[in-house]
Amino acid sequence: MKTAILSIGDELLLGEVVDTNSARIAARLADEGIATVRKLTVGDDEAGIAAALQELARGHDVVIATGGLGPTDDDVTARAAARATGRRLVLNDEAMARLKEFFARLGREMHPANGRQCLLPAKGELIPNPAGTASGFHLLLDGCLLIFLPGVPSEMAVMLEESVVSLVLARRSGRQHTRTSTLTVFGLSEAEIGARLSDIDRSRPGLGVAYCVEYPMVQVKLRATGEDETALTALLEDGAAMVRERLGDHVVAGGGETIDTVVARLFRETGMTLALAESCTGGLIAGRITAIAGSSGYFLLGAVTYSNDAKSNLLGVPGDILAEQGAVSAEVARAMARGARKLAGSDLALAVTGIAGPEGGSPDKPVGTVFIALADRAGCSAKVYHFSGDREKIRTITAITAMDWLRRRLLAYPIDR
Amino acid sequence: MKTAILSIGDELLLGEVVDTNSARIAARLADEGIATVRKLTVGDDEAGIAAALQELARGHDVVIATGGLGPTDDDVTARAAARATGRRLVLNDEAMARLKEFFARLGREMHPANGRQCLLPAKGELIPNPAGTASGFHLLLDGCLLIFLPGVPSEMAVMLEESVVSLVLARRSGRQHTRTSTLTVFGLSEAEIGARLSDIDRSRPGLGVAYCVEYPMVQVKLRATGEDETALTALLEDGAAMVRERLGDHVVAGGGETIDTVVARLFRETGMTLALAESCTGGLIAGRITAIAGSSGYFLLGAVTYSNDAKSNLLGVPGDILAEQGAVSAEVARAMARGARKLAGSDLALAVTGIAGPEGGSPDKPVGTVFIALADRAGCSAKVYHFSGDREKIRTITAITAMDWLRRRLLAYPIDR
Repeated sequence: MKTAILSIGDELLLGEVVDTNSARIAARLADEGIATVRKLTVGDDEAGIAAALQELARGHDVVIATGGLGPTDDDVTARAAARATGRRLVLNDEAMARLKEFFARLGREMHPANGRQCLLPAKGELIPNPAGTASGFHLLLDGCLLIFLPGVPSEMAVMLEESVVSLVLARRSGRQHTRTSTLTVFGLSEAEIGARLSDIDRSRPGLGVAYCVEYPMVQVKLRATGEDETALTALLEDGAAMVRERLGDHVVAGGGETIDTVVARLFRETGMTLALAESCTGGLIAGRITAIAGSSGYFLLGAVTYSNDAKSNLLGVPGDILAEQGAVSAEVARAMARGARKLAGSDLALAVTGIAGPEGGSPDKPVGTVFIALADRAGCSAKVYHFSGDREKIRTITAITAMDWLRRRLLAYPIDR
Repeated sequence: MKTAILSIGDELLLGEVVDTNSARIAARLADEGIATVRKLTVGDDEAGIAAALQELARGHDVVIATGGLGPTDDDVTARAAARATGRRLVLNDEAMARLKEFFARLGREMHPANGRQCLLPAKGELIPNPAGTASGFHLLLDGCLLIFLPGVPSEMAVMLEESVVSLVLARRSGRQHTRTSTLTVFGLSEAEIGARLSDIDRSRPGLGVAYCVEYPMVQVKLRATGEDETALTALLEDGAAMVRERLGDHVVAGGGETIDTVVARLFRETGMTLALAESCTGGLIAGRITAIAGSSGYFLLGAVTYSNDAKSNLLGVPGDILAEQGAVSAEVARAMARGARKLAGSDLALAVTGIAGPEGGSPDKPVGTVFIALADRAGCSAKVYHFSGDREKIRTITAITAMDWLRRRLLAYPIDR
């Protein structure tokens, strides 16, 4: 089955908005073994959208379109769908009833402009939107199923899950399936990883390997294609085992996990508790830790100590060390980690202090100089890093390196990077 | 001039990666008044890429392709470019010299796999990559300029800036320009905003208005099109003034600013200092504050107090209030804000405590219940919110509402939401 995704919106062509919808749809379909073969983006232009729908309908079995169903004048997708399929726009009673119910549930007055969102192509089937005001719909054009969803990502996502996946699956006839599995690697270059894994796909028919840099990590994507779904799962497991064997403890996550969920799981499994003391990352590490539900079970406290006073008053970093070594130093990182551990009464405490830039660098401590320290019952170790890039990049790689320290500590792996 | 963007990569069609490159390219070209009229995504398939290049070359003046120039086996874009243009792949000496220099500069050994990245279509012109190993190149096909860039976003971005923009501008002949301006709105629905602004574009020839929900905010996009660049700037300024007049203090940012940079600017301008105490947002607010360079000038300290002990020990929240009112209460939010202000010696201190879910809710304090408090010299105010959505959504809207509190406090606007 050939599926295409059509993203609609001037904001996408102007680069004002990144198109996350098409990625989410493609990923969800890929989970079901359905490959997206083309993605196309066009602007909020009725004739242009209609032409794109006709073009995609010719070469594909299913086209999923997002965007342009809102209540404002620039939303013309329903009109374009009517034009492409030679239908009229009519008031859809079911859409109107749902819209009134939606506002009643929120206890709000319906804005008259929202009424426009109930004008859909004649004989289009409604796709309910439980999360917003824009109803979706689907209809057929020359045997191709055209599906229309709003562009607001949270609304699109719930409609995809509740209605669209089953609509698409009902049209599948072929038996070819695809299953994918991703392993996240940290600390090796893409070329090095590619070289170590170069023969894996050749040695396993039906298995493909691809690489994707998600700075500062590299994702190794394994894809198995074939008719027997059980065999695909075994093939992926076999491939993942080979990757882990060749890349060792640089594989930080796999099997649907991320480095953040791995760290969360390890804290739960070990029963350890954590405190953080952040300077240059300014709360980014705490933000990653607390993004995971259940983190209150092991994360006791985070201190974002930007000023020297905060480092002294809150974490007890001695003033003479700050004066002699500077705030960005191994001694201060260690004192921050020890101070945070004492303050929180936690098993582990991790601290970072560094220069994210663009200002604040010096000849002996240039922008990108970062110290990470980890304190536990046995003591406290610290290490200096020299990262490159802009402020955002330096903060990101620092936060991920810190997450890797936690992962390695909880797995009793060496911190050798 | 008609420009198209071709994104290449199986990971994009599988939805494993969100295509930020095409948005960045489109935004940069839009800055120069060059409209992207179509974006297309295809997989890592030599024949498919070649066909897409030929298809796009027929209808456009410039095609910018990204992805598939890496050192691994799944990178086939250079071969596809050669096929589409009927050329051979040859070793490009300049690319090889640059690659050797790149590794020498890093003090690293070049991996043999990287040599593949120097095989480019014959007579293709090199586009240097100062940030990585994949050289870009450009060549002509039937009068259309084809530009090839690597898919790693940071490398693509620097090559776009240093080489591609000038290559594209050199081919521009038309005189039609587009200028855009975005205003960010918080606290009004898209329908309400659309209704208040419905006549703006009709009253100003050449001015267009579009809306984009970037939860929980709405972006109002003004676009001016015409031949006279000075007039476009005036038209945009006029439009922005009308938007501000009609939406009042709900306009949180405009003129290239974001709510985060507005808050940063206001702290700099007022000379005020800030401390934060975060529970359910777990560092997100501190992360936003410290993402802005220069934040060390006003941001003194952030406390991520997830546990009750941390709230007591660090911020001095009285144990009896925690016991009687619960950690998620107006009294605790106020005590956290006052405690953070005292600890940091700051002018302002903002605190949040709430239930982000999915666990932890109760009948009288369901998931989404959030208290925000702000302490200053004059006292401390607090307010309860009932947000809906999943953990990520509740944390995001809480953080943005907190940023809006800071904005309103620094501008002496009422906090009335």
